[in-house]
Amino acid sequence: MNFTLKHTDPGSKARAGLLKTAHGTIETPIFMPVGTVASVKGVHQRELRDEIDPDIILGNTYHLYLRPGTEILKSAGGLHKFMGWDRPILTDSGGYQVYSLSGRRKIKEEGVKFKSHIDGSLHEFTPESVVDLQREIGADIIMAFDECTPYPCEYDYARRSMHLTHRWLDRCIKHFEESEPLYGYQQLFFPIVQGSVYTDLRKQSAEYIAGTDAVGNAIGGLSVGEPAEEMYEMAEAVCDILPTGKPRYLMGVGTPINILENIALGVDMFDCVMPTRNARNGMLFTSEGTINIKNKKWEDDFSPLDPMGHTFVDQEYSKAYLRHLFAANEYLGKQIATIHNLGFYLWLVRESRRRILDGSFRPWKDQMVKQMDKRL
Amino acid sequence: MNFTLKHTDPGSKARAGLLKTAHGTIETPIFMPVGTVASVKGVHQRELRDEIDPDIILGNTYHLYLRPGTEILKSAGGLHKFMGWDRPILTDSGGYQVYSLSGRRKIKEEGVKFKSHIDGSLHEFTPESVVDLQREIGADIIMAFDECTPYPCEYDYARRSMHLTHRWLDRCIKHFEESEPLYGYQQLFFPIVQGSVYTDLRKQSAEYIAGTDAVGNAIGGLSVGEPAEEMYEMAEAVCDILPTGKPRYLMGVGTPINILENIALGVDMFDCVMPTRNARNGMLFTSEGTINIKNKKWEDDFSPLDPMGHTFVDQEYSKAYLRHLFAANEYLGKQIATIHNLGFYLWLVRESRRRILDGSFRPWKDQMVKQMDKRL
Repeated sequence: MNFTLKHTDPGSKARAGLLKTAHGTIETPIFMPVGTVASVKGVHQRELRDEIDPDIILGNTYHLYLRPGTEILKSAGGLHKFMGWDRPILTDSGGYQVYSLSGRRKIKEEGVKFKSHIDGSLHEFTPESVVDLQREIGADIIMAFDECTPYPCEYDYARRSMHLTHRWLDRCIKHFEESEPLYGYQQLFFPIVQGSVYTDLRKQSAEYIAGTDAVGNAIGGLSVGEPAEEMYEMAEAVCDILPTGKPRYLMGVGTPINILENIALGVDMFDCVMPTRNARNGMLFTSEGTINIKNKKWEDDFSPLDPMGHTFVDQEYSKAYLRHLFAANEYLGKQIATIHNLGFYLWLVRESRRRILDGSFRPWKDQMVKQMDKRL
Repeated sequence: MNFTLKHTDPGSKARAGLLKTAHGTIETPIFMPVGTVASVKGVHQRELRDEIDPDIILGNTYHLYLRPGTEILKSAGGLHKFMGWDRPILTDSGGYQVYSLSGRRKIKEEGVKFKSHIDGSLHEFTPESVVDLQREIGADIIMAFDECTPYPCEYDYARRSMHLTHRWLDRCIKHFEESEPLYGYQQLFFPIVQGSVYTDLRKQSAEYIAGTDAVGNAIGGLSVGEPAEEMYEMAEAVCDILPTGKPRYLMGVGTPINILENIALGVDMFDCVMPTRNARNGMLFTSEGTINIKNKKWEDDFSPLDPMGHTFVDQEYSKAYLRHLFAANEYLGKQIATIHNLGFYLWLVRESRRRILDGSFRPWKDQMVKQMDKRL
């Protein structure tokens, strides 16, 4: 067994667990910083490791396939060696990125043909090819190839798409089982629940996915524009069906509040570009609420960036200084904000874990959700 | 006396010295990384301090005056506190930036009227106002307000401009002596030699500047497009006149080869945007020659960035990885290249100092100049 459930919160469905992978054990709940093209944008690997300290990061198969390409990654001995990161990596399957290329892709039973966003060249992903690509990347956790439905989505489309995702899943599993890791270490495979915002489809999909008896299970197709309440409803319906003894990964979620609410529903793993992307636009997440550091009000606030913060940037730089860097369009501003936000997200999941283990998660979560909703 | 000459190289005019300032002692020869708007682009202050380790950095009065403005800097208690840098800072006077705004500035006896490159607003710098601005910034070393002549430059224009610079210098000195530091520590004042590429003007200017008996002296108006041989000729003519017991600062120079050649002529201090700007374009300086990391030849070279390098990036990242970051337009690439280049420049001046002190500078310099001229 790769996953061990250590504790469940008495006041919610939140769980603390341990997920063993070839590059190390992951303490859950966990947030995975997104390293799209073999780099968490603007963050040195040593800062990621020593300051932000996530147990695992995420890479995007679509982006890595285009650049540097899996031939280079194979020559390097896999993504870990290529980028100098020796902790676990999870790769998505490219499904989400390909789906986002609307107008530049065609979905068929066999797979998806698409045009590169870089040079317009033609490519095809199939359930088999994305397993191969993720073998070549050498991710510790490999994701199934799925279709991520948009929001809103007609019921009939959602139903047909879910069945396509299930058929693709069968092909992924077959190919995964018939293929071998390339670098001598075990890779884990996670299937993905779909079904848009339709509870009956979500339940049907969750049962199908649970039936594959995979090491871990993911929930896709959420955080695509639906109201938070619908997201929580779907996550809860799915979590209640997915096996207790396996980790649950909610893909692409979300705000700090989304993360706490979904932890309370039984989700164990998260990833999202929000802390990094919003950082580059000057938005800081803190335990007291959000800060738009570009606002003139911070111009002469020489207090530390976040006195409660957990990375060096929070103590070593002031709000006024960071505000100046954004005003002057200095890239160091984006670097500082990114480290701050990722540091905060990782603190949030670590603190959640600590609270789950000592039984105080629920009241703390309720309090935090209120606090973090403020704009400072 | 703020400057102590420790040793002069037997095989050249190279010198090793110590320059005392309010924020610490500077070992010369020194290279000053450029922190234009209160940030060395893409480099955290802790990386600058711990990895690159310069004794002093440079700030630009023109840029700091526009953003964040000296009111903010005054509220912060000066630039050191504002940006979180407790070692020495030198500021230029804004003369060079204002001169670069051709078509957007008007030079008169009183001073220079110019339009901001940011919003076109009208401003004026005078010899007195730039001293005040540098008092407000709180630089350890303050530069005189000068006119930097272009290359090529008519003899008559160069002569008239030199005299204007001298008259401005007198006003700067008067205002400097009549004003006080704002933050309780001593600020040093350096005048600037001008005279374009005309030896007689350079000598005349050097004598005028030497006559002011300043703590240190600068050479401006070089590295503006003239052939390296003319730069060396002017630097040598000026160094031979400037007092031996005062540090000599050659402004805006240059390539690693330029730096070694000018050290050999008796220059002690340098600054240049080249290591940082060229880094952002993928050009790396090494002791074996220059690397264009964007070249396809590095695509599968997984060896360390620079095995002889002196910062963490040189060992922790490979050439192939850095090449990928540039190909994918990931900002981390610029960050890595910047740290590498600054690390190399600082190594170059520290090694020069070591060689001057042990008497082996000249043959080492000759060898290095040959090596570094290669493209790898």
